[in-house]
Amino acid sequence: MASTEVHEEATTAELDALFDVLCVWGRWGDDDERGALNHQTAAHRAHAAGLVVDGTTVSLARDLPVAPSVEAPVAAQHHMLTSGDALDAQGLPGYEACGDYIGTEVHGLGTTHVDALSHMFVRGLMYGGRPASEVRSDGARRNTVMSLADGVVGRGVLLDVPAAHGVAFLEPDVAIGVADLEAAEEAEGLRVGPGDLLVVSTGRDARRAAQGGRLDPFTEGLAGLAPECLPWLAERQVALLGGDGISDRMPFRPTPQWPFPVHQIGIVAMGLHLVDNMALDRLAQACAGAGRHEFLLTISALRIPGGTGCPVNPVALL
Amino acid sequence: MASTEVHEEATTAELDALFDVLCVWGRWGDDDERGALNHQTAAHRAHAAGLVVDGTTVSLARDLPVAPSVEAPVAAQHHMLTSGDALDAQGLPGYEACGDYIGTEVHGLGTTHVDALSHMFVRGLMYGGRPASEVRSDGARRNTVMSLADGVVGRGVLLDVPAAHGVAFLEPDVAIGVADLEAAEEAEGLRVGPGDLLVVSTGRDARRAAQGGRLDPFTEGLAGLAPECLPWLAERQVALLGGDGISDRMPFRPTPQWPFPVHQIGIVAMGLHLVDNMALDRLAQACAGAGRHEFLLTISALRIPGGTGCPVNPVALL
Amino acid sequence: MASTEVHEEATTAELDALFDVLCVWGRWGDDDERGALNHQTAAHRAHAAGLVVDGTTVSLARDLPVAPSVEAPVAAQHHMLTSGDALDAQGLPGYEACGDYIGTEVHGLGTTHVDALSHMFVRGLMYGGRPASEVRSDGARRNTVMSLADGVVGRGVLLDVPAAHGVAFLEPDVAIGVADLEAAEEAEGLRVGPGDLLVVSTGRDARRAAQGGRLDPFTEGLAGLAPECLPWLAERQVALLGGDGISDRMPFRPTPQWPFPVHQIGIVAMGLHLVDNMALDRLAQACAGAGRHEFLLTISALRIPGGTGCPVNPVALL
Amino acid sequence: MASTEVHEEATTAELDALFDVLCVWGRWGDDDERGALNHQTAAHRAHAAGLVVDGTTVSLARDLPVAPSVEAPVAAQHHMLTSGDALDAQGLPGYEACGDYIGTEVHGLGTTHVDALSHMFVRGLMYGGRPASEVRSDGARRNTVMSLADGVVGRGVLLDVPAAHGVAFLEPDVAIGVADLEAAEEAEGLRVGPGDLLVVSTGRDARRAAQGGRLDPFTEGLAGLAPECLPWLAERQVALLGGDGISDRMPFRPTPQWPFPVHQIGIVAMGLHLVDNMALDRLAQACAGAGRHEFLLTISALRIPGGTGCPVNPVALL
Repeated sequence: MASTEVHEEATTAELDALFDVLCVWGRWGDDDERGALNHQTAAHRAHAAGLVVDGTTVSLARDLPVAPSVEAPVAAQHHMLTSGDALDAQGLPGYEACGDYIGTEVHGLGTTHVDALSHMFVRGLMYGGRPASEVRSDGARRNTVMSLADGVVGRGVLLDVPAAHGVAFLEPDVAIGVADLEAAEEAEGLRVGPGDLLVVSTGRDARRAAQGGRLDPFTEGLAGLAPECLPWLAERQVALLGGDGISDRMPFRPTPQWPFPVHQIGIVAMGLHLVDNMALDRLAQACAGAGRHEFLLTISALRIPGGTGCPVNPVALL
Repeated sequence: MASTEVHEEATTAELDALFDVLCVWGRWGDDDERGALNHQTAAHRAHAAGLVVDGTTVSLARDLPVAPSVEAPVAAQHHMLTSGDALDAQGLPGYEACGDYIGTEVHGLGTTHVDALSHMFVRGLMYGGRPASEVRSDGARRNTVMSLADGVVGRGVLLDVPAAHGVAFLEPDVAIGVADLEAAEEAEGLRVGPGDLLVVSTGRDARRAAQGGRLDPFTEGLAGLAPECLPWLAERQVALLGGDGISDRMPFRPTPQWPFPVHQIGIVAMGLHLVDNMALDRLAQACAGAGRHEFLLTISALRIPGGTGCPVNPVALL
Repeated sequence: MASTEVHEEATTAELDALFDVLCVWGRWGDDDERGALNHQTAAHRAHAAGLVVDGTTVSLARDLPVAPSVEAPVAAQHHMLTSGDALDAQGLPGYEACGDYIGTEVHGLGTTHVDALSHMFVRGLMYGGRPASEVRSDGARRNTVMSLADGVVGRGVLLDVPAAHGVAFLEPDVAIGVADLEAAEEAEGLRVGPGDLLVVSTGRDARRAAQGGRLDPFTEGLAGLAPECLPWLAERQVALLGGDGISDRMPFRPTPQWPFPVHQIGIVAMGLHLVDNMALDRLAQACAGAGRHEFLLTISALRIPGGTGCPVNPVALL
Repeated sequence: MASTEVHEEATTAELDALFDVLCVWGRWGDDDERGALNHQTAAHRAHAAGLVVDGTTVSLARDLPVAPSVEAPVAAQHHMLTSGDALDAQGLPGYEACGDYIGTEVHGLGTTHVDALSHMFVRGLMYGGRPASEVRSDGARRNTVMSLADGVVGRGVLLDVPAAHGVAFLEPDVAIGVADLEAAEEAEGLRVGPGDLLVVSTGRDARRAAQGGRLDPFTEGLAGLAPECLPWLAERQVALLGGDGISDRMPFRPTPQWPFPVHQIGIVAMGLHLVDNMALDRLAQACAGAGRHEFLLTISALRIPGGTGCPVNPVALL
């Protein structure tokens, strides 16, 4: 189809057209707020549980950034409310407890988090054609993270693009194309299909390590998916997309009106929940060791009424 | 064994003795911080994945309390940072996004959360014999929620005590005993065993509904486990304990020095992670409908360095 | 003037008219954001400094509510970041310091705070005729608390209405009228005039004490000013209005569209900054002891770009 | 007195001795928590009010840093709770209001704040000889910011050291000595005396402007007072010390155990409240214009039970 042919550095007109072609608003009813998660069935989940072989668990999340850094300029807030120096604070003999407070910006670049479908807008509209005004200062009214209230569970697939190319990590300016995704599929001996929770690695952690442990994504960039992957994701009926970057390349693309096409078209047109800033090095190692890159993946957001996303700790069960 | 014989309203001496008998410090090495989770093996987890039948997912969490209430006097903070009225806030044409901040006290009574092993102390010591001073105002140094960094996954078992007794909910002053747990096992046709993630229902949600939607656990109380269940949990090698209350009865028990024996002995002596304030009505319904009360359960805490617990949204896959 | 004649329980039509009559939009230029503070001159402030006699200072603020209560359902957050148990946290030998975090909702009923002119709207407009859309989710663009960036200093006048009537406190349903204000003036031997920072006492603290220390303003109400005081405040050219309640009576008035007329007409039409929830018992005592109810008053809000108000600790120098 | 003779780069032994000589613990009673503020009398404050000439007010505070920067790596949190897009959020016809949340670390380098006497310790003790353990994770028990609950008011004196030397700002490595302070006194025609609130300018704002608006105090340093000024401050009976830096030089001094001698000896031994990170350019301009560098200064901290300091907006009335 002509309109899904996009160049690596797509034009505004191409992305305008791509948005329209990939737009699924109304496909699952006018009130749908789950988007591409509708590609997944209970049978898919039951099947995914059958993939588990040895019972290893691996987290796909980074530590919450409790101090500011170049990757997380706005740190999370971890405050002890009572520590071991105040065991009598409750005034109840024998009750010796401590506790803390945790707070964070949901969509921070240094935080592993899921984007709800209310996180992005195109021309003032979010998924389903709902106006931006339905995200108000007292919370979102539509497309909130409550769409994930019962958890996201399914077949997780790691496409380890650097490994498929025999490198430790992708250079920051790389645009991952369909050929790269399919090369990884071939290397791993699997095929991404309906309902899958797709995770694409760019080797961000390895790149940071190679740079001595410090990587500023704002100035040094991050590899990401080229817009041509979007039709491919739709065709494969992927339910959710995650990555160790933000799926989009950083810094933003120069195409007018389309600085972050994966976020803009993926979330808004396709209803694709994104998980940003995953930690994938340990998963990649575990998958390589096990010789299989599919697993049962659980992504469990907190139940935040009105929320536009949530920090998460996705867990793979291999 | 005489010392594990405790009355429903145990004496201080009985609980002192019970603590000593159930104390497992050092069993898994001097540096162990996982406690009873050591009862669980990878094989257990792989087996648990095999329990999945139809792929239904059910959350075991309550909504985060974003407004104060009698159950959650200290509300969570959900603040929009940019909403639909500030789409140009990023100053990047076409980039229309919104975002929010979420913060909460970890151990709030209205919040579904996991208690790390640093949450409780007995006589100034926490699990493993570590002194309270290792939980400092800048975070815990030992027994943090990072022990759960790769997620907790295993066979979840719901013991639906009210259902076993043919009632909708337990009265607040009820002390659940071993006979009650075993009655539920029998009614459900299963047996709690090594590595299980045990969830005990008291019917809190049904009780709240019966009271018109308002239930103050501080003044009206919550049913919970009698201390005699603690040796039973140890014998069965349960890996983690959750419930719709706080596992302990509320308000606190009058036994001097032992106001919350399940928290005090369970967490500190036995290394038992607790999950408080779960929402179990939908799970109970799903289990009853499916005719099975075992499932694959995933509890995924955020990776909070120094944290003493975390709000969670446990997800059952049936 | 007929249109400023309002009954104690004014009608919607009367308050509509009152708004129009008292509206000063444009009087001090189209870009004005200081409103009634324009009534005050530097000469007024210099004169006010001359009122100081003995150098006594008295705070007019309540303690920040660091725990929830009936008066402050949403508590402030005072979190220690490092306390005395973490003196080595900075890693610098000899540098032994501690520190904390303080956060609060600005307009909480239990918090002494100033309302900026962006806090209220009437029919979608704020002071100066600016649309509500200029207060965005990323902050106010107009009429922010930055209008007070150099502090509010002037002649403070305490009108102690209960004292003028020989009672300890006003009953919650009392509507303070012009006659009450003038009775207090007469009793105190002064006259409120241009540029004054007017503080009206209802005896809230004494009433709380009389009730055993607990006073729920939501259910038990608070005395406040009748709408007929608004023209009087305008005529006297008062620069700012504060009180131990919220200046308006609580709970809200039944007049359709005008539940809180002092906030709605005072802030929006008249450009009157309000200070809510002051603590006035000690000031009343000091004034009575000194035999004078005028003093130098300083109200110093933090410089919060985009802020709609600020918690404050007003200080009287007698 | 030999022991107060300290070199610009003092030795550990010299500062040990200086601490002991300047220590005033017990001078105002064993329970004193006001320290050097005791040098100030009500008569002093009444006299200070008489210094006011023309009624000009000038803020000595910087804007709260609502975004992270090199000067304020941990930003304050200004969150709108309801903005102009949610005027109906209260559900009360006609009540159209908005509101916000403000939170901040108290002692941030980018924040104008007062240090309470509980902020610093020397060898585990704070002012008055109280142990560090009295600052607990649930708040300070002693020497809190509540010592300032009625405000700090008095004669403010600006010593404009750069102006006295005919330069725009001091180089970052400059150690201001007694001769510099006295040169400024002479240039300004005044003498610092008992009860004064002393403000020392280093020209930080001018230096930042000269560097194009960006000044990283961590790497580029800040001028500050040499330890030899401490005996001078004691002799002059200064009640409080503020500055546009942190009074100490930055980065920390290499003297073992004494990295920040003004904080360590000033706060702990002398009971001197410090105000850090003031904005002094406008005040310096106003003072120069008026030809007088003394004024009425009001520093009003919020009433935070247990607080170790507070962000403030000090206001000068000239």
